[in-house]
Amino acid sequence: MARRAAAYQREHPDVRLLRLGVGDVKGPLAPAVVEAMAAAVAELGRAETFRGYGPEQGYLFLREAMAREDFQARGAEIGPEEICVSDGAKSDCGNIGDLFAPESRVAVCDPVYPAYVDAAVLAGRAGTYDPATGRWSGLVYLPCRPEDGFMPRPPEEPVDLVWLCSPNNPTGGAATRGQLQAWVDYANDCGAVLLFDAAYEAFLDGTDRPRSIFEVPGARRCAIEFRSFSKTAGFTGVRCGAVAIPSELVREGQSLLSLWRRRQSVRYNGNSYIAQRGAAAAYTPEGRRQVRANVAACRRAARLLLEGAEAAGLTAYGGTCAPYVWARVPAGMTSWSFFDLLLREAGVVATPGSGFGPGGEGYIRFSAFGGEETVRAAVERLRRL
Amino acid sequence: MARRAAAYQREHPDVRLLRLGVGDVKGPLAPAVVEAMAAAVAELGRAETFRGYGPEQGYLFLREAMAREDFQARGAEIGPEEICVSDGAKSDCGNIGDLFAPESRVAVCDPVYPAYVDAAVLAGRAGTYDPATGRWSGLVYLPCRPEDGFMPRPPEEPVDLVWLCSPNNPTGGAATRGQLQAWVDYANDCGAVLLFDAAYEAFLDGTDRPRSIFEVPGARRCAIEFRSFSKTAGFTGVRCGAVAIPSELVREGQSLLSLWRRRQSVRYNGNSYIAQRGAAAAYTPEGRRQVRANVAACRRAARLLLEGAEAAGLTAYGGTCAPYVWARVPAGMTSWSFFDLLLREAGVVATPGSGFGPGGEGYIRFSAFGGEETVRAAVERLRRL
Repeated sequence: MARRAAAYQREHPDVRLLRLGVGDVKGPLAPAVVEAMAAAVAELGRAETFRGYGPEQGYLFLREAMAREDFQARGAEIGPEEICVSDGAKSDCGNIGDLFAPESRVAVCDPVYPAYVDAAVLAGRAGTYDPATGRWSGLVYLPCRPEDGFMPRPPEEPVDLVWLCSPNNPTGGAATRGQLQAWVDYANDCGAVLLFDAAYEAFLDGTDRPRSIFEVPGARRCAIEFRSFSKTAGFTGVRCGAVAIPSELVREGQSLLSLWRRRQSVRYNGNSYIAQRGAAAAYTPEGRRQVRANVAACRRAARLLLEGAEAAGLTAYGGTCAPYVWARVPAGMTSWSFFDLLLREAGVVATPGSGFGPGGEGYIRFSAFGGEETVRAAVERLRRL
Repeated sequence: MARRAAAYQREHPDVRLLRLGVGDVKGPLAPAVVEAMAAAVAELGRAETFRGYGPEQGYLFLREAMAREDFQARGAEIGPEEICVSDGAKSDCGNIGDLFAPESRVAVCDPVYPAYVDAAVLAGRAGTYDPATGRWSGLVYLPCRPEDGFMPRPPEEPVDLVWLCSPNNPTGGAATRGQLQAWVDYANDCGAVLLFDAAYEAFLDGTDRPRSIFEVPGARRCAIEFRSFSKTAGFTGVRCGAVAIPSELVREGQSLLSLWRRRQSVRYNGNSYIAQRGAAAAYTPEGRRQVRANVAACRRAARLLLEGAEAAGLTAYGGTCAPYVWARVPAGMTSWSFFDLLLREAGVVATPGSGFGPGGEGYIRFSAFGGEETVRAAVERLRRL
């Protein structure tokens, strides 16, 4: 993608490329967050207020704010002692597999955010790759269909670990309460553990879809949730995330919360005090207002993107509960041939759906993170295609 | 330790406990570092200077400063592309094992900083624990003798991985060039990889002992070095470290640098921009002067500790090249009985040597991180014992 876009730009130096392929936020950080981090830096510069090693599971001021606002305020029973702060959801998603047996059977959505697959590959759980099908022999692929809002249904067979992501990257879908309940029931039935990635939950603001898996009855016995400050508070360069593991989650007689704490105490040493102060500031009334305004702006851009894609004649999904629009490419084209067409004819860079697994072929992903102005310009060019 | 100290304090609320058990720094951060981090926070708060995801291996500005100052200025041939920045040496030391086969044979010093053993245990490489000997069946223990400055000699047998730490925690020893050359020769002979923890290298300032394993000829084919900003720039709460892996380090046809990059790209997402700016500031002329002054103060305290322990009649080691003094407990006592005596009779908290493995029994560790005033008071009490 980057290579083709760069080559095109070299050949057409006058075209302003409109980048709708980005998964990164545009910033800047909210003033309340900046203020809190500046104060934390100043604290570390004075002997009386210096802080060295922090608690490995994160400072209580942050874990309490998260427990209260992200969980309890939504009827999800998660306490501060069940939250483990980290340097980001990417690390947590990559590391969580350490708690499970190497031969654990992993299910992923199709299409899927590739990080879950990569982690399974590194852990030796993916088997061998078949270039013909684009599938790994050891993974269970869960088809995601437009008629289900691209949320997968539980498989017939039992598995050990299931990656779920709602709101979803790349499809922009978001699970209903009923869909998540079906997964919780399935997991409690067969003993699977649901690995629920809530990185985009802020985009559900104002909807009635669950923002945490722990809003669903029974989830405390079968789910782990991954939280991120990247897409809400713009922390992609600051680094802060967290895992919520209920004390009731037990497998083979072991508390997964205890196992995770042990893992982290050996292979991690806590997140930066500065980042944790910044994250906590996102929960103050002022910080919350500012962060919500940033997310709302991105949601407006996503909505424009959805409408623009539809106006350009594409069948498009997502865009209301997530920063992504997932569109079918025109008949007779592939993800990559449509990528090339968009690049050459419109100077628009999007992400070929086939990069998200075999089920992504025939789709393209547009991201709203570039901001409203970029999206407006791109929509205008799409319309004239 | 913490429990016994707390119980004593409850019974004797008037005694001012002098804590020489700490491994944490006292701070504050150097002004140049504070200024750089404050500027970085401000940058993230403005749209024009905001930065999102950084390079997974760390920003070039930091990797170039490290390559130049930590390696090339000392005749160690390491380039910026061979340095991978992280959130700290604890994570790196815990994660490096991911590159090697599960059945890899690991050698550790005895006594040893427990994190290396814990990492081997979590990775399933340690075998079973024998409470009678205090040893893990799967580990090769390298005895560290006073007459060798507590640096271990290569074993007769071949191993796959060897943890070396110089200057050493807990013994305060530091390897000579000859000792490290013997290890490099051994490793190149049998194919072992040396895992060299240089967290305390700043304490070698002004000595002729190697501050990097890569000052030793042949190390580029057999060593990985762990760098930390915790004990030099006081980053225990900020979090920043790095691994140096030479491009020539190849095992079973695989470049370990490439493997590490791949591991990090899946299971990590780069360190905080703010922390990296702070770390880079420690290499400016002003930052370097300030950081050196902090280390020098800690070294003065360590020297006082060594002299005080000797004046108290203890046989003591370390204290000149490291923040730790390692002392033999009086005849007829154990690490723990001497710990109790120090606590009860002097109100001094130290670390029982037996916590660092079976070879630590009969020793106690004093740390100079509490600062000169604490050390002076403790030495005074030791003298009157």
